[in-house]
Amino acid sequence: MNEPPLTSLIEGYSLRVEKALERYLPIVAEPPERLHAAMRYAVLGGGKRIRPLQVYLTGEALGIEPAVLDGPACAVEMIHAYSLIHDDLPAMDDDDIRRGKPTLHRAYDEATAILAGDALQVLAFSVLSRPASGPPDSRSKLAIIQCLADAAGTSGMAGGQVVDIEATGKVLSLGELEQMHLLKTGRLIQACVKMAALCCPELPTEVALGLEQYSHDIGLAFQIKDDILDVVGDSQTLGKTAGADQALEKATYPGLVGLAAAENKAADLARSACAALEPMGSKAERLKELAEYIVSRLR
Amino acid sequence: MNEPPLTSLIEGYSLRVEKALERYLPIVAEPPERLHAAMRYAVLGGGKRIRPLQVYLTGEALGIEPAVLDGPACAVEMIHAYSLIHDDLPAMDDDDIRRGKPTLHRAYDEATAILAGDALQVLAFSVLSRPASGPPDSRSKLAIIQCLADAAGTSGMAGGQVVDIEATGKVLSLGELEQMHLLKTGRLIQACVKMAALCCPELPTEVALGLEQYSHDIGLAFQIKDDILDVVGDSQTLGKTAGADQALEKATYPGLVGLAAAENKAADLARSACAALEPMGSKAERLKELAEYIVSRLR
Repeated sequence: MNEPPLTSLIEGYSLRVEKALERYLPIVAEPPERLHAAMRYAVLGGGKRIRPLQVYLTGEALGIEPAVLDGPACAVEMIHAYSLIHDDLPAMDDDDIRRGKPTLHRAYDEATAILAGDALQVLAFSVLSRPASGPPDSRSKLAIIQCLADAAGTSGMAGGQVVDIEATGKVLSLGELEQMHLLKTGRLIQACVKMAALCCPELPTEVALGLEQYSHDIGLAFQIKDDILDVVGDSQTLGKTAGADQALEKATYPGLVGLAAAENKAADLARSACAALEPMGSKAERLKELAEYIVSRLR
Repeated sequence: MNEPPLTSLIEGYSLRVEKALERYLPIVAEPPERLHAAMRYAVLGGGKRIRPLQVYLTGEALGIEPAVLDGPACAVEMIHAYSLIHDDLPAMDDDDIRRGKPTLHRAYDEATAILAGDALQVLAFSVLSRPASGPPDSRSKLAIIQCLADAAGTSGMAGGQVVDIEATGKVLSLGELEQMHLLKTGRLIQACVKMAALCCPELPTEVALGLEQYSHDIGLAFQIKDDILDVVGDSQTLGKTAGADQALEKATYPGLVGLAAAENKAADLARSACAALEPMGSKAERLKELAEYIVSRLR
């Protein structure tokens, strides 16, 4: 039997998470209509859905039903979407384009953008706490909530965003830059893999450790590739302003070591990510393909 | 044996929640230091702590150990503190004073204020998901998380804040105003009572229903009293800018029905809140005193 190519899996899971997000997001017909519309504007119909894809593909490798993963996949995408909304605000990166359309505060207004971000963050935890979503076991559900909360907090995404702002216009060492990338982007990608693993009771230790290493490496590789695309990509393909990092004097990987070394580093990380999955044998094939996809993507 | 007066209980629980918040908030010595410092600035050493007090006093009436309630009490205070930080931002109410000191975006900067609010919200859910905090039973913990998440979301606090912003400068009906108050302030106060009740397995239905009615009534009474204090209070006692509602053309209870009718309404609600607690007998005494305190307070 021929396995479908990764691209068709990506398409399938993108469609799946879009439908699940549709279901979880509050409808526009219910008050407060404008806030609900703003949340849907920011979340639906755009984005690469890399994080949900990571949740589903890890789950697939571990034999978890996709229906169990809809909650975690949507929750992490809501957290990601809220972080983009807040990062784009005038007081932060002051960006005009996101996911190929005006940023939320441009399409609506700043107050609505702040509140829509706040509401998306809390919706993620509402979704994860519902009896009908995620794994049936209460302890696993709690572990998933804790995993996502810690990845989004000051020792993860929010902490990385502060470091990013403070680093703007400064020269960072390679170690400082990696640390910033790991917090800002890496922790949430690691959480995608871990949330799926937490749905799997009695996971062998070597598989759990392998997945941890894998998620660490592709988290960093993903952000390095993002830095590269900001230099070599065009705004239309990216769906956001290309060259924004340089314009904002952001510390980036290619800025620090050059484009070629950055590409090499991303490829190295993808390789070490794949190597870490050896204990899983052939079940890890898709996750390895995803690692390659992450460092070779054009947007 | 003489029972201590409510004021000394309030003092004791305020001290208790302050210590617990100290413990749960990330320390300034750890990076990102500035973000951690901002979170602590906004949360510690100020505020009336009405919400934690509501958690502890409900728990006391139901025979729950205060140690079990530290997590929920701190979580709701973190949610409340984050909402104040974001509400005070220039894009929202643009306020300069809060809890007797400069608002967070004045003391730090806007970006830090947005991120500190974001980080406080997610810390609330991290705290509630930890094995060591809250009730030991996983199902109760999940129910508490869901309760707080829904109270803070678009059908609660965040929704109410949007309605508040949209209503600014408009004339609301009494029904619309009450609905806004119930969402913006009421749902979170209701959650305080419910989170404590969720720590109590096998709560008799009539007690649960009584507590629900009580929390509904004091939630509204609390906000009406807040509206009144904005008119009759002074900035120093309030620790925030008095008269801000009128300056911002906010819809308020005294603005709509006059001061005397607003006072009467708050007192009526306190009475009906107390009446709802009859099924609890003498165990409800403290909660009744709290209802009186909420409508007679000077700040």
